[in-house]
Amino acid sequence: MIRIGIYGYGNLGRGVESAIKQNNDMELVVVFSRRDPASVKINTESAKVCRASEAAAYKDKIDVMILCGGSATDLPVQTPQMAKLFNVIDSFDTHAKIPEHFDAVDKAAKESGKVAIISVGWDPGMFSLNRLLGEAILPEGSTYTFWGKGVSQGHSDAIRRIEGVVDARQYTTPVPEALEKVRNGENPSLSTRQKHTRECFVVAEDGADLTRIENEIKTMPNYFADYDTTVHFISKDEILRDHSGIPHGGFVIRSGKTGDSEHNHIIEYSLKLDSNPEFTSSVLVSYARAAYRLNTEGNSGCKSVLDIAPAYLSPKSGEQLRKELL
Amino acid sequence: MIRIGIYGYGNLGRGVESAIKQNNDMELVVVFSRRDPASVKINTESAKVCRASEAAAYKDKIDVMILCGGSATDLPVQTPQMAKLFNVIDSFDTHAKIPEHFDAVDKAAKESGKVAIISVGWDPGMFSLNRLLGEAILPEGSTYTFWGKGVSQGHSDAIRRIEGVVDARQYTTPVPEALEKVRNGENPSLSTRQKHTRECFVVAEDGADLTRIENEIKTMPNYFADYDTTVHFISKDEILRDHSGIPHGGFVIRSGKTGDSEHNHIIEYSLKLDSNPEFTSSVLVSYARAAYRLNTEGNSGCKSVLDIAPAYLSPKSGEQLRKELL
Repeated sequence: MIRIGIYGYGNLGRGVESAIKQNNDMELVVVFSRRDPASVKINTESAKVCRASEAAAYKDKIDVMILCGGSATDLPVQTPQMAKLFNVIDSFDTHAKIPEHFDAVDKAAKESGKVAIISVGWDPGMFSLNRLLGEAILPEGSTYTFWGKGVSQGHSDAIRRIEGVVDARQYTTPVPEALEKVRNGENPSLSTRQKHTRECFVVAEDGADLTRIENEIKTMPNYFADYDTTVHFISKDEILRDHSGIPHGGFVIRSGKTGDSEHNHIIEYSLKLDSNPEFTSSVLVSYARAAYRLNTEGNSGCKSVLDIAPAYLSPKSGEQLRKELL
Repeated sequence: MIRIGIYGYGNLGRGVESAIKQNNDMELVVVFSRRDPASVKINTESAKVCRASEAAAYKDKIDVMILCGGSATDLPVQTPQMAKLFNVIDSFDTHAKIPEHFDAVDKAAKESGKVAIISVGWDPGMFSLNRLLGEAILPEGSTYTFWGKGVSQGHSDAIRRIEGVVDARQYTTPVPEALEKVRNGENPSLSTRQKHTRECFVVAEDGADLTRIENEIKTMPNYFADYDTTVHFISKDEILRDHSGIPHGGFVIRSGKTGDSEHNHIIEYSLKLDSNPEFTSSVLVSYARAAYRLNTEGNSGCKSVLDIAPAYLSPKSGEQLRKELL
């Protein structure tokens, strides 16, 4: 049994807990939280809840710590810290800061002799893997990533910060015509506006100036100004009834040519996810297995999904995999 | 520069030659053929053509030998033989015989201290990789593989063996309703007939009994009897004009549940290939890079695509990959 610890018990932590139950070779040993353990109710009877500050006491009691904090402030501190004690997995997703995060975690993991796998999930994660495979197999071509249809947490938060807004949910959707052109091998150059549209469902305070709110959303730099944005004002009841899920997904498409450039090929990888955090959690758990095994074989240091041989993710033996899946 | 040899110069060998030209870190050194070298015209000025029997003389002159023979009789003999001398890649695709092929190649490659990667391509190959990733990430679910629309060489050959048939081309196509059910997360149980249809374009001899030919095709055990099969009789000119390409493709779909099984997720990987052999060749070439690197790092023995960390396929450094693709 691979003994797992969860560090941070929000949507992602709860998803990891569920995913562990689907894997017979793993058990959840402990959940670490910043909150008072007495106030944290978990769904695994055999596991304990402890204060985050007590993690070091579990040094020899768990095989992999799965970090479930946020990328903005939690993981840059927590992943290097925990890598000094444990094999660790995180879902660090601030793309621009991955290189510096990698270096900090690598240093810690090499000192402790542990394996750390960072930026695990679907983007970064499975989408990264497919971007790499696409360009390695078809060097003459273009890669396209589309996101959605799905809820963007960051954009929903940005709307909530506008004066007069009570709640908001923002969906990102690929433009169907753009997807179609890419799939047809047309290799289009696509502007930001041509790739995705943004749809916002907003609950406003009674008597708020809806025209001002809509205008503030649509002209918000970086978040909305470069997109075709639609704003719908709805009631509190409606947002709860129709928009409480966290679906997401997207597409990675590689379009490339071979021969004397007369043959076109399309490789398409897509995800349609009912729950973004639960899917990410499921990916984290499969990479926890890989981290454990790699460390058992004597490896240490920081890695990403690009560095992990797929066989390490499966509980099946090499023999079984060749017989059943190859 | 990674120095490559090609062993066997048919569709696949020519595809490998083209693919090497797309990769700046590789050069084609030599093509081995069973034919008289004087009669083999290749497209790489700097490369030589030699008899297959002369391969051993190139032991220190090439880094990876890419085997481009057939799975029925060539590769079971050639891959173990060549693995005694070189790092090798093959596209062995007789699924049921992969375990025994693996064992034979592994023995040879371990003795010589070389790396062999077998069953490289798209199925087995990229499809296998996606079957593994799908079930590792979503352990509670079902995996579906659909092939097509594309030309099945084996089925085309089977039709050509019927008396009165001059030429034939057989296309395999997924049943759209079946694909749709899988994509909707319905987890259907699908019979052979419900998954694929078979469409045959046949050139018959003048005066041949077309009813008999059509009947022989449709009732042929294993090949056609279990499918809804359509037969079109066309002229020699038409088959040349409309059916001389070798397109193929397909879909690997994993449908699985998370949480308390209330959330469904669909992972879909698909290929739409203008040229089946050229795409397979492109995959072979990217894995040649991996074999060379793994051997440089001291590894030996037989591996499949499931055992190869994706980063080994790319000419980019780990640092570049993390910055650009992760």
